[in-house]
Amino acid sequence: MTTTVLSLDDTLQLVQRIGHDRLMDEMIAGLTRAFQTFGHDSIQLPPRDGFHYSTPTTGLIEWMPVMEQGRQATIKVVGYHPENPRQRGLPTILGTISAYDTTTGHLVGIVDGTFLTALRTGAASAVASRYLAPVNAASLGLIGAGAQAITQLHALSREFRLTRVLFHDADVDAELSFPDRAGTLDLHGTEFIAATAEEVVSESDILCTATSTAVGAPPLFTDVDTRPWLHVNAAGSDFEGKVELDPSFLRESLVVPDLKEQAVLQGECQQLTGDEIGPELAYVVQHPDEFVEARSRRTVFDSTGIALEDHVALNLILSMADELGLGQRIQIENFSDDPKNPYGFLFEPVPAG
Amino acid sequence: MTTTVLSLDDTLQLVQRIGHDRLMDEMIAGLTRAFQTFGHDSIQLPPRDGFHYSTPTTGLIEWMPVMEQGRQATIKVVGYHPENPRQRGLPTILGTISAYDTTTGHLVGIVDGTFLTALRTGAASAVASRYLAPVNAASLGLIGAGAQAITQLHALSREFRLTRVLFHDADVDAELSFPDRAGTLDLHGTEFIAATAEEVVSESDILCTATSTAVGAPPLFTDVDTRPWLHVNAAGSDFEGKVELDPSFLRESLVVPDLKEQAVLQGECQQLTGDEIGPELAYVVQHPDEFVEARSRRTVFDSTGIALEDHVALNLILSMADELGLGQRIQIENFSDDPKNPYGFLFEPVPAG
Repeated sequence: MTTTVLSLDDTLQLVQRIGHDRLMDEMIAGLTRAFQTFGHDSIQLPPRDGFHYSTPTTGLIEWMPVMEQGRQATIKVVGYHPENPRQRGLPTILGTISAYDTTTGHLVGIVDGTFLTALRTGAASAVASRYLAPVNAASLGLIGAGAQAITQLHALSREFRLTRVLFHDADVDAELSFPDRAGTLDLHGTEFIAATAEEVVSESDILCTATSTAVGAPPLFTDVDTRPWLHVNAAGSDFEGKVELDPSFLRESLVVPDLKEQAVLQGECQQLTGDEIGPELAYVVQHPDEFVEARSRRTVFDSTGIALEDHVALNLILSMADELGLGQRIQIENFSDDPKNPYGFLFEPVPAG
Repeated sequence: MTTTVLSLDDTLQLVQRIGHDRLMDEMIAGLTRAFQTFGHDSIQLPPRDGFHYSTPTTGLIEWMPVMEQGRQATIKVVGYHPENPRQRGLPTILGTISAYDTTTGHLVGIVDGTFLTALRTGAASAVASRYLAPVNAASLGLIGAGAQAITQLHALSREFRLTRVLFHDADVDAELSFPDRAGTLDLHGTEFIAATAEEVVSESDILCTATSTAVGAPPLFTDVDTRPWLHVNAAGSDFEGKVELDPSFLRESLVVPDLKEQAVLQGECQQLTGDEIGPELAYVVQHPDEFVEARSRRTVFDSTGIALEDHVALNLILSMADELGLGQRIQIENFSDDPKNPYGFLFEPVPAG
């Protein structure tokens, strides 16, 4: 009974053969389906929890479990270490996602959670924007031009015909290198413009925020006149104390969290009272007719990131890997033909399958 | 930056080369050291949590996190599916243990958690028995003769010169097959005797209980005269509602939980009030002089199983694997030389290390 382990090389081959555009399209479609059914009894999504620490470096390792009843539990374990890029040449977010069969407890598969976190966070913004942003949005703003900005841009470029991308990063190197990195997406006919945070906000139809702003830092922008229909995907606020947007800006917008229970603890909704918070994204996806008018006013998707998104990402990538014959199959759990002898594997042949 | 994955074959080679006796001895020694320092600030051990369900089968998948400050977080994800042996030829307990570097969030290694759970649970009983049972204990009783009984027996045989092993299992097949399974341990000069639960209890110096008794079932035994110095390792009570021992039996014993906070929710201590519960095992290990007298009276180790034990087991097996050059090194997390481009791995060489 083996576990499928996808290596970087497996995922590399997978994305090269599937194509990153089709991968993103299927991720967006899969997430949409998941939000269409979420809230019914089939999904259990307990709050994530984790270890926060300041030594040896400021960091966080958290576990994000979800269970699809009668089928599979998925757990992402993800680290957030903002010193990683500068000090170690590593991404801020490093993680893996694992799937467990709820019939036996067997670890079915383990896959990357770094690329997939970026992929699904971008896809979630595309889903929210499809329901809340103007259909003809053409100008995308990005505050925070790091790893997450690339998949925000990619996902939104699959849903909208973007002609202008305005971007800003407090880190000059990140801002300077952004067009090159975005260039790997082959977005022909899109103009890239570095700008101040204020310029980005005032000239966007859709804005994505995805920064490593510090706890207690001021909002990314204040008192900027926005387009009346601006839709914001606020992806950076995802743990206690970390927020990117001005509370008064939020109060003048329809705020749609991915998961209210989590957003009030870890998202922009930390700054709002219950009656200032709008419906969850699943409600919006399930009742699109109620939100037609919302496309012409200001809306904020408070994207804290939920394990359901990782569950969809893992199953998408595992099923594609299976179709393509990619991945290593390793028996990790040690047992033998005699389940009642822990030392049986020393004396008996390994069971097949 | 690779993850070490130990396959069944790796662990098989490891145990064959190290020897299962030395492995158990080092596990007991490692656990003893861990309990000698536990309680000081270096270890964070939040309560385990999990998914309980009754469809498609009765089961539980839980995550057990622990962090050694400034070094490593360890998470075991473990399933408990009592129908596994009979219906699927699989162990009741299936699991894997993963280690994360708290500097970067990187998944350092993933190893079996099925054999290692049995190994560390046995070792924990040996540690408790070393401090609480008579030094010359010679008669071991086992109620529940499944997988866990094998490692209970093995661990205790490393600490005590056992001449008699009395065993009982409500499942006739498990009882009948026990001597054969125990035979793989090469315990020369030890007599094996199948008996009723009552006989097992009354004739033991040390008793280990490790059954899959159902929630709400009566105690494994009641009103049995025991040897005055009987030490019990109660390993089977490990989730809400599941207990093996009679509360009046517990009240007449010194009850030492592995982790009080967890034992009152998931162990035999569910049946006791706070003042009926003795000190934790770490306290006993750190203050052996206070428990010399306890060796001549009745004691119970309430072993719910804690992530600290899995942390020790994982590090032991990973360091042995490293010494022996065993294990596969796989880069699972997807990133490239450019940590700010999630698609960078499609275009750039994989970073070394």
